[in-house]
Amino acid sequence: MAALGGNALLRRGEPLTADNQRRNIRIAADALAPLALEHELVITHGNGPQVGLLALQSAAYKADEIYPLDILDAETEGMIGYLLEQEMINHLPSDRQCATLLTQIEVDSNDPAFNNLTKPIGPVYDETEAKQLAKARNWRIAVDGEHYRRVVASPRPVRILEQRVIDLLVSQGVIVICAGGGGIPVICRENGTLAGVEAVIDKDLASTLLAREIQADLLLMLTDVDAVYQDWGKASVRAIKRISPQAIKAFSFAPGSMDPKVQAAIEFVEQRGGYACIGSLKDAAAMVKGEAGTLIGEDTVETVWWE
Amino acid sequence: MAALGGNALLRRGEPLTADNQRRNIRIAADALAPLALEHELVITHGNGPQVGLLALQSAAYKADEIYPLDILDAETEGMIGYLLEQEMINHLPSDRQCATLLTQIEVDSNDPAFNNLTKPIGPVYDETEAKQLAKARNWRIAVDGEHYRRVVASPRPVRILEQRVIDLLVSQGVIVICAGGGGIPVICRENGTLAGVEAVIDKDLASTLLAREIQADLLLMLTDVDAVYQDWGKASVRAIKRISPQAIKAFSFAPGSMDPKVQAAIEFVEQRGGYACIGSLKDAAAMVKGEAGTLIGEDTVETVWWE
Repeated sequence: MAALGGNALLRRGEPLTADNQRRNIRIAADALAPLALEHELVITHGNGPQVGLLALQSAAYKADEIYPLDILDAETEGMIGYLLEQEMINHLPSDRQCATLLTQIEVDSNDPAFNNLTKPIGPVYDETEAKQLAKARNWRIAVDGEHYRRVVASPRPVRILEQRVIDLLVSQGVIVICAGGGGIPVICRENGTLAGVEAVIDKDLASTLLAREIQADLLLMLTDVDAVYQDWGKASVRAIKRISPQAIKAFSFAPGSMDPKVQAAIEFVEQRGGYACIGSLKDAAAMVKGEAGTLIGEDTVETVWWE
Repeated sequence: MAALGGNALLRRGEPLTADNQRRNIRIAADALAPLALEHELVITHGNGPQVGLLALQSAAYKADEIYPLDILDAETEGMIGYLLEQEMINHLPSDRQCATLLTQIEVDSNDPAFNNLTKPIGPVYDETEAKQLAKARNWRIAVDGEHYRRVVASPRPVRILEQRVIDLLVSQGVIVICAGGGGIPVICRENGTLAGVEAVIDKDLASTLLAREIQADLLLMLTDVDAVYQDWGKASVRAIKRISPQAIKAFSFAPGSMDPKVQAAIEFVEQRGGYACIGSLKDAAAMVKGEAGTLIGEDTVETVWWE
């Protein structure tokens, strides 16, 4: 299974135009197509910049018709999923089928994340703007360095509603694109029905859940750095080649970027017993062969570093 | 197979808020769930108001980041498909699976529609506004009554890229929501690869193609009128109950609303040999039993009218 990070689909600082998205997604399909030829493949992707953009577009038009995050998430699954499926089809023989599924993921309505909003989305604001937005749109705003940003709940994923459909398609050799942006967050109400909620599910944890449920042998976590680095920013910095989940817990990583990936990888490896590999999107095929990235597996006795 | 018209998902004149969409989609699921209990079911839907809104939202934010229609279509398949799937799940036993598929539909790059833009989308403008927009955004604008509106190409659907995935899911009893808004229009380039195009595929023709390919026994075309009326607007007006495709060709219907539905129904019945039924969404279950709507079938010898 391959999980495409947000930075793998949009280079840092790049404007979110249709052309830029198409170009980056073409690069992603180039990297993933060789895997699809030799393996069953399920692809997930981030949606941070896209969901932020749709929220701003929606607010710029008519402030009283702002759509909630579950609907915006669904729109980004449509947009990114379409572009990704089209490029995968363009890179593969015509007898290979692709399917992009809208994916609802249940979260617990009592998840403490709903009382402790931590996930920043959208652009940064100054203090005056931030206060106005908080009042006008009933947003929670938090300090982000020298600026302010909207924050939303980031509850843990519990259950993928379309799981049996995903299993069916994978078993028939279909390449499945799903759980984009961490999935569309829904809760199960007391009467048993589903309802969308204003939240963003952590996409690394959603990928972990999906990888476990489909019983993936390997979870590839693809981003824009080529490996997990020990002592990042210090003279002693070095890239990890192979490590056990127990050993990697001794290190600390950048919160909000590498740390959530490492934690999600540990969770997958410990619960499923397979392998997780973190590295650069362009190296996806090499990572499968053990020639790039950081491989986390239970059977690693001694940590190995890249030369 | 059930095709939901745009007017079945948004009442005429109603603002396109998230709440209004949820309420109308809940009504649609109420009408469709009984069918799903007794039949295989594939659902398509319109997206006219939604794609118009996204185009305006996108333009209101940054005019140089306007997304092309194929991407906006994909976003609406995400938004509407998600809401519809959620409500179908809420109306059905938990062992019944639903899947919403992003759907690309190939059109012919030589389709004459690309040289004769006829499909109006988005709001009406006055002459000055219309001329500015035509220049600023390279839009084709056409006279629409006393106003002006953007027009785009409406090519014929040729091939559904995800057809085999749809067939697989239907054969396993999964309720499939697909081809929303007539599908995402793509062309096949000379080198064999797909590319999205600025167009809107007629959703009635897309439904016909899909119904034929899945070999549907019955194509339900669901809108906000309860039947096809002969002599609409005259004293002699009467609602048709049963009619043959040959007989209905002798009548004329409102262009842009009932006529395309009737033409699409004729095409399906003549090519597939099944039945098409046009009527009101709320009557969906009754239409299947022959108790509502206008049924078009080859085996109808004499036209029958509702009392």
